[in-house]
Amino acid sequence: MQVFLGIDGGGTGCRAALCDAQGRILGRGAAGPANISTDTAGALANILTASNAALDAAGGVDPARVSAVLGLAGANVSRAAAQLSAGLPFARHRIVSDAMTATVGALRGADGIVAAMGTGSVFGLSHKGTFRQFGGRGFVLGDEGSGAVLGRALLAEALRAEDGFAPMTPLLQSVLDGHGGAEGVIAFSLRASPAEFAQFAPKLLQGDDPAAERIMTDAVMVVRAMINRLQTDPPLPVVFLGGLAGAYAARLARCWDIRAPLGSGLDGALLLAQGAG
Amino acid sequence: MQVFLGIDGGGTGCRAALCDAQGRILGRGAAGPANISTDTAGALANILTASNAALDAAGGVDPARVSAVLGLAGANVSRAAAQLSAGLPFARHRIVSDAMTATVGALRGADGIVAAMGTGSVFGLSHKGTFRQFGGRGFVLGDEGSGAVLGRALLAEALRAEDGFAPMTPLLQSVLDGHGGAEGVIAFSLRASPAEFAQFAPKLLQGDDPAAERIMTDAVMVVRAMINRLQTDPPLPVVFLGGLAGAYAARLARCWDIRAPLGSGLDGALLLAQGAG
Repeated sequence: MQVFLGIDGGGTGCRAALCDAQGRILGRGAAGPANISTDTAGALANILTASNAALDAAGGVDPARVSAVLGLAGANVSRAAAQLSAGLPFARHRIVSDAMTATVGALRGADGIVAAMGTGSVFGLSHKGTFRQFGGRGFVLGDEGSGAVLGRALLAEALRAEDGFAPMTPLLQSVLDGHGGAEGVIAFSLRASPAEFAQFAPKLLQGDDPAAERIMTDAVMVVRAMINRLQTDPPLPVVFLGGLAGAYAARLARCWDIRAPLGSGLDGALLLAQGAG
Repeated sequence: MQVFLGIDGGGTGCRAALCDAQGRILGRGAAGPANISTDTAGALANILTASNAALDAAGGVDPARVSAVLGLAGANVSRAAAQLSAGLPFARHRIVSDAMTATVGALRGADGIVAAMGTGSVFGLSHKGTFRQFGGRGFVLGDEGSGAVLGRALLAEALRAEDGFAPMTPLLQSVLDGHGGAEGVIAFSLRASPAEFAQFAPKLLQGDDPAAERIMTDAVMVVRAMINRLQTDPPLPVVFLGGLAGAYAARLARCWDIRAPLGSGLDGALLLAQGAG
């Protein structure tokens, strides 16, 4: 009897779930990070740990019976995916992006657009049985509307205000004061990771600071234009995921049919493994 | 008899010149990089090498007779400036930003606005005997209109075009092809220095690619707004410096009285040392 394994792996952890042809969960497992583009060997080790835990929990399932789908951050780096592929023991497997499993999971395989707005950002379009991914180009060149990009915009605006190029506001002044002035903000910017920039994003959602509203308005316009570019006629439902999901859903509620996610990326990987996604 | 030493130090090298009270050059020297914020000890060593060469060329001038002004990249990092200061042998010295010496040199001490548009960007305002620096906040948060920021904008637009979020053009396609596709562009963006991004800026100034024109138009608008914010009534003359000086001067020729620079940053340091800046 064939069984189906779903893997959802990203920068913080890796989860696995095993199910039968009826979708009944037989076992689960979890392990550490699985970003194959930054640490392929470490990702493979964690994926095997999580998978083996799921197979063991199901009574020691033979990998030769397993049809697996792995939704992984960094799966778009083809060399890393090939290297990972060589180390997997399953009868069949398919490596896809975590954006694809998140989209299929959020829509339960139905047509729609998923905008994942977390530290980074990426857009998934599921339409007539095909999936396409947009954006997700990273902090330096893309990740439009993401927490990291919003945080960077806030710090940049604080420096512009300190120079008199933009109006000073209480929030911008508090950002400057929090770093001991402009010099501290610049020093932070040269060493901070995207996740550290993203820690400033919640400040943009609190209260009614004029600079925060301007930055959020600009970001909402960018995200709206990107989603409109992906829309079809008739329009598809839109699901927002990630820490900024609520903020974008509230500000774009009148643009499209915005829905809550129906499942997780792990659910999406399982659906794809069953051939249903 | 008192003599005056000017030092112009940056990421690529360090130059020194010694003059008398009448401004006659007595000696010159040069050495390696002097960015005090990234390598304070190395910057000090190179500054001393260049200074000693200038003092030797003038017949072995005693540092106790020297009044020095040092215009240095990274001078805004106060801790590094204090550390450097402790190692200097001159009777008197003053450490200022390279933006200040560039401004004083370009205007020969007169009032005006200097926009240094190179790999980075920074704006100097000399008005009624006082100098103020604006911008120059670095590649991550600032450096508006700079070569590095323009190059980054070109790469980001290429990725947007590849996603269908912006129109594809011959230049954007050539950028993608030059990196073996979007994956290569993203990989480059994660490891490239500002100078490496800036190497793409000249592509924006050649021919008439619609994407290049859009990116340059946006940058010119940003730079124009920043300079307008610094302008006085009656308006000050504007000098553009750096590799993009010609591009901005041509596109903003009708906005202000744009002039060619009258001298270098080293000239500015000497003028300041003589108390004339």
